[in-house]
Amino acid sequence: MTMHAISIDTPGGPEALVWGEVPDPVPGEGEVLLDVVASAVNRADVLQRMGFYNPPPGASPYPGLEVSGRVGALGPGVEGWKVGDEVCALLAGGGYAEKVAVPHTQLLPVPAGVSLVEAAGLPEVVCTVWSNVFLDAGLTKGDRFLVHGGGSGIGTMAIQLAKAAGAYVACTVGTEEKAERCRELGADLTVNYRTEDFVESGGYDVILDNMGAKYLARNVTALNTGGRLMVIGLQGGAKGELDLGALLAKRASVHATSLRARSLDDKARIVASVRERVWPLVAAGSVRPVIDRTVPMAEAAEAHRLMENSGHFGKILLETGES
Amino acid sequence: MTMHAISIDTPGGPEALVWGEVPDPVPGEGEVLLDVVASAVNRADVLQRMGFYNPPPGASPYPGLEVSGRVGALGPGVEGWKVGDEVCALLAGGGYAEKVAVPHTQLLPVPAGVSLVEAAGLPEVVCTVWSNVFLDAGLTKGDRFLVHGGGSGIGTMAIQLAKAAGAYVACTVGTEEKAERCRELGADLTVNYRTEDFVESGGYDVILDNMGAKYLARNVTALNTGGRLMVIGLQGGAKGELDLGALLAKRASVHATSLRARSLDDKARIVASVRERVWPLVAAGSVRPVIDRTVPMAEAAEAHRLMENSGHFGKILLETGES
Repeated sequence: MTMHAISIDTPGGPEALVWGEVPDPVPGEGEVLLDVVASAVNRADVLQRMGFYNPPPGASPYPGLEVSGRVGALGPGVEGWKVGDEVCALLAGGGYAEKVAVPHTQLLPVPAGVSLVEAAGLPEVVCTVWSNVFLDAGLTKGDRFLVHGGGSGIGTMAIQLAKAAGAYVACTVGTEEKAERCRELGADLTVNYRTEDFVESGGYDVILDNMGAKYLARNVTALNTGGRLMVIGLQGGAKGELDLGALLAKRASVHATSLRARSLDDKARIVASVRERVWPLVAAGSVRPVIDRTVPMAEAAEAHRLMENSGHFGKILLETGES
Repeated sequence: MTMHAISIDTPGGPEALVWGEVPDPVPGEGEVLLDVVASAVNRADVLQRMGFYNPPPGASPYPGLEVSGRVGALGPGVEGWKVGDEVCALLAGGGYAEKVAVPHTQLLPVPAGVSLVEAAGLPEVVCTVWSNVFLDAGLTKGDRFLVHGGGSGIGTMAIQLAKAAGAYVACTVGTEEKAERCRELGADLTVNYRTEDFVESGGYDVILDNMGAKYLARNVTALNTGGRLMVIGLQGGAKGELDLGALLAKRASVHATSLRARSLDDKARIVASVRERVWPLVAAGSVRPVIDRTVPMAEAAEAHRLMENSGHFGKILLETGES
């Protein structure tokens, strides 16, 4: 049996993404085979397309870290799910395809009030924000929180989750239009990084950063005593100078994490915590997926161009045409 | 009333430490006045003598972060202690003196089997190791632990506490003699930093570091997935290059802390935890203070020279002559 998927034969620009016929994946022990309705674009997919972020061992060669769809078949040893269930899922890869095999511990039901297509934009950002900002950094009511790139998929979700937790929420943005939309999502403060320095708006108890080296020194400066800097992206480079004296004086810490390379047990723990703690907020409407637009999956190259131009606000989805 | 204390009139070399007559301290609300029997030398005292580490606001101007002695008087609002009690105490400063005022929440009873003089060498190293390695970094049975400077006061205590917790314990040392003594304390592995690279002995789940910038890159390389680097000293400089890409690939974190500047509440919490969790190990003999030598407090300058030459193993104590 065959399906369509986006392959990367030769890493490079968006044109490297080729929609073609490939063999169906086979669900292994504890896995479910999903009929994919939609996937979503993440920065990591762009890196993978360029050849900088290879799939971890055992993962699908196709890009795509999250999908929504229906359970099409069950591998051996799967509990709690049945054929036909409408779900979304956190993946280690393989989302840009008509079918994907995924450990059943990484499935989530589609939350009430969210369409099956929209649900594709939830797993990666919710699990990333929840594990970093809440499970690891312990953001709590009354804390001051800063997220860089407020208009990104991560940013739009982090603003909503931090606000729902009772934190003071600041974000950086590149345009006044994005600032306005971040404030609508609940941001107490927006800083236009083109004209202002976010350090002047500090200090922060938790900072969620996607810029890496470029912002390292200023992020440390902007931390409060006991503050935690959580680095989840390296868009501004990997190697930067760290002032341990400044870090020591405020007893702060720098964490860098990636969700994709975590163990199955870790992912299962995070997904279970998201289902228990975040899904009720989505069902209640206080946290919602923010979708920029939906593009046919065969046109994934165009979706990557959109993301690389940073003109989007929220998630860019890829539809298979299944509905 | 007057007492003797070590003042630093002009920061500089060991000769800056001058033993002279000064006014008695007065215990404030919640404080106890101690008649000091002994204090101990810490690296921070050397920095303070050089003018690089000023006492935090409200702290005594005299150096000394720990003492042992007897309760001589109680300020208002002190509970649980009485005049004559033999104690040791964690201080924000003022230990190099015949008397010192200290919050009663920073007192610990002298543990069974430890002399009143020896007890002066416990509070700073035990509270530092306990708060960093156990409360913050969560070292647990079966973890791999590395401490730099195994022969220092911190090193000798970290080896014993980590071993008592069931960790695999490695340390760096500068001489074969120190290596031998660290193994006697329980170290599973010693690395002579003059001839070997500790990175080759990794990976480690927790690293306790006093070198700062000089070891930053190699410490990160030596961390395991999920590892925690705890920086408590900057003997090798403050500013170093951090490879966030390496940190991200292993989901590791860099923490830098200082005990001295913590809030009274934090210190009270740490001291209470030490009393509950570490004091029984000391009383049972599985953890003991390691004392290099004891010097009259009036000769503190000589004690600083000894520490700066790094020829010592364990703590250098300063006796007031009170006994």
